[in-house]
Amino acid sequence: QIVEFMSSFFAGREGDLRGLKVLVTAAGTREPIDPVRFVGNRSSGKMGYAVAQMAAERGAEVLLISGPSALAVPPNVKAVQVESTNEMLEACLAAYDAVDIVIKAAAVADYRPRDVADQKIKKKTDDALTVVMDKNPDILKTLGAKKTHQVLVGFAAETQNLLANAREKVVKKNLDMIVANDVTAAGAGFNSDTNIVKFLYANGDVCELEQMPKVDVANRILDEALRIRRERA
Amino acid sequence: QIVEFMSSFFAGREGDLRGLKVLVTAAGTREPIDPVRFVGNRSSGKMGYAVAQMAAERGAEVLLISGPSALAVPPNVKAVQVESTNEMLEACLAAYDAVDIVIKAAAVADYRPRDVADQKIKKKTDDALTVVMDKNPDILKTLGAKKTHQVLVGFAAETQNLLANAREKVVKKNLDMIVANDVTAAGAGFNSDTNIVKFLYANGDVCELEQMPKVDVANRILDEALRIRRERA
Repeated sequence: QIVEFMSSFFAGREGDLRGLKVLVTAAGTREPIDPVRFVGNRSSGKMGYAVAQMAAERGAEVLLISGPSALAVPPNVKAVQVESTNEMLEACLAAYDAVDIVIKAAAVADYRPRDVADQKIKKKTDDALTVVMDKNPDILKTLGAKKTHQVLVGFAAETQNLLANAREKVVKKNLDMIVANDVTAAGAGFNSDTNIVKFLYANGDVCELEQMPKVDVANRILDEALRIRRERA
Repeated sequence: QIVEFMSSFFAGREGDLRGLKVLVTAAGTREPIDPVRFVGNRSSGKMGYAVAQMAAERGAEVLLISGPSALAVPPNVKAVQVESTNEMLEACLAAYDAVDIVIKAAAVADYRPRDVADQKIKKKTDDALTVVMDKNPDILKTLGAKKTHQVLVGFAAETQNLLANAREKVVKKNLDMIVANDVTAAGAGFNSDTNIVKFLYANGDVCELEQMPKVDVANRILDEALRIRRERA
């Protein structure tokens, strides 16, 4: 952490987010099938926790809304733990008006089981188990539709057609920027300590970054959010 | 850990598992829906890791076969990481002939999605997503059917009809003992550091234990496994 602090310091980032409120979402959400089973996803939370950590080191007031994660909450970060996508949406909406920058790094469950069993579903003798799932609300799209002064940054974790999918999201969801990464690439994605990402902007610009530690990706994302905010003012 | 070691020592357990090979399974297995999503369960791995730790402290040669868990492998424990129920079954079968005691604390996925998508399933505009799941092999039943010299201890995590379900399992799966816990009780079950369990035996005996730390439950389970082994000899 001392090394990270020094790198922020020498890059002229010290305190540059002071006075700003940054909302970060992280990790994956879980949707219960019954009291024991759930549908989850592979997000470790590392990318989002790195953003929260660097934003706090750079002086921002940080609210981290996180799904279940084994990671420790970084120093000087206020954390809210949620489980399902609907809980994450509610927590985001409650904070949204008051924040300046939103970095939505969480990998939310797009679908949730329609019927959640009160008791553990017992294994049947010979049957298949069919789980019908309904679409969850789209948190990023909801925030995009309600955007006023906020800088809104999303993530696109894809396994194919990365740029086309990301470009569509940045426009349709009214984002300022999207961070696209191919989660199947070596040195990128879930559980990796490094990431390989592209930044796509509302105006169509694309910026490709080299493989780098997630804390460095975090700083670059925050740099961009700050730049977008300043250009808008 | 020093406290735990001392408690083992003073209870006359020091080295009492020396020369024995103990296989412990722990945590939950995951069944992929696509490269991003999976069906999982809430097991933290704490109970199984506690058994592995105490067995190693008491001198056993311990093999821990674990699903994804945030916990550190205890000292002097050989660990094999698996993801799905089929992978856990294969790892157990590979080790089974050579072990003396099997403590199956893992919470395995009973069902797995029939079709695993190669690529991330994109969110459709208006459709529900239906996941058809097939029954997984029953690891405990498979080990029970192949039992020769081993002492085989299972777990039953239930949310209702705890004793009836556990009693049925101990007989049908040819276990020597089953550890039953109601995962919905306060101070028991997933993620808790304590547990409230009952031991049920093949002969119909039931023993109810008070709420206690999972490491103490672990020692009591190992005591019983050792006693059953000695009685059989």
